[in-house]
Amino acid sequence: MNMVSLSLPSWVQGVNFSKKYVSDFDKMTLAIELSQKNVAHKTGGPFGAAIFAEDILVAVGVNRVVPESCSIAHAEMMAFAMAQKHYKNFDLGDSELPTHTLATSSQMCAMCFGASIWSGVRRIIYGATARDVESIVGFDEGPIVSGWQDELEKRGIEVVPEIARDGACAVLQSYRDAAGIVYNGRRVSADK
Amino acid sequence: MNMVSLSLPSWVQGVNFSKKYVSDFDKMTLAIELSQKNVAHKTGGPFGAAIFAEDILVAVGVNRVVPESCSIAHAEMMAFAMAQKHYKNFDLGDSELPTHTLATSSQMCAMCFGASIWSGVRRIIYGATARDVESIVGFDEGPIVSGWQDELEKRGIEVVPEIARDGACAVLQSYRDAAGIVYNGRRVSADK
Repeated sequence: MNMVSLSLPSWVQGVNFSKKYVSDFDKMTLAIELSQKNVAHKTGGPFGAAIFAEDILVAVGVNRVVPESCSIAHAEMMAFAMAQKHYKNFDLGDSELPTHTLATSSQMCAMCFGASIWSGVRRIIYGATARDVESIVGFDEGPIVSGWQDELEKRGIEVVPEIARDGACAVLQSYRDAAGIVYNGRRVSADK
Repeated sequence: MNMVSLSLPSWVQGVNFSKKYVSDFDKMTLAIELSQKNVAHKTGGPFGAAIFAEDILVAVGVNRVVPESCSIAHAEMMAFAMAQKHYKNFDLGDSELPTHTLATSSQMCAMCFGASIWSGVRRIIYGATARDVESIVGFDEGPIVSGWQDELEKRGIEVVPEIARDGACAVLQSYRDAAGIVYNGRRVSADK
């Protein structure tokens, strides 16, 4: 009773964990593919994320807010939790572990920004910008400090913006076209 | 395999869900009591949170980062997830639900600040300040926009600061005195 379980959709079992994801473009391609499949399968919002130890895929996440009835189940949060479960370690930045990269199809919202710091990842690459998310789909991304990239770099986290941005935006657009649910705590409505 | 489960400690079963928590002080007293019990039972960090529908207790949360090997398992996050599970609704601000208050023993970190917006709570009361947490225990609370209370109020969320702050700080001090683990993604060490 005093437990919450958050699941990824079953189609995630098809993700290729044996392939090497060498470049940032390779990593982002997977994150965007996850976001696209989540829209196609109607298993959550148009967001995908993946965590890599160097070029090895460790964990994936997709947005599960609506299917799991849980506002914290963003793609990045799912990926952080899955990766940490994999290692049984709450800190992916542990000195005994390899360096971890988060690839996320869209720039992090206010919550996931904070969570990225606690996660222990050392690199973050993203596709669509927060403005893209707000202008294409209408999600509120929340207030983030203006120098947020500097704040991450100060904490030893490198940020690489707008990798394959067009591809990430195309998925957001497809979600909009399919009139996916837009939720943001204050407003729940099918987007026009 | 593609699932993460986050649990509260078994002592949480002793929490009184039939009592009415009328005043903000009543609500905060429970949040602080949860933080204190979490320290006493060594079941996580010195943070407690509770969510109320008017004066009815809906869900509680305590920090479970270390025992659950999960950096997102902050007290507030656990409470949001538990309350949303209770209603099978990702939005505690749903017009069909009563107004919800989050009581948290310490001011929210950067992650929980963002999460509070998505949660749907309409009121947030807190005990110790972020500065208290940083100065007493040494946790990094992360970067939050300077006008964060205004940002919440703009989104229809009332903030009531520093309720029973001394009591909340006393628990932080007891955690420090017991040399509890201080983790923050970049640094994992027993605090001196």
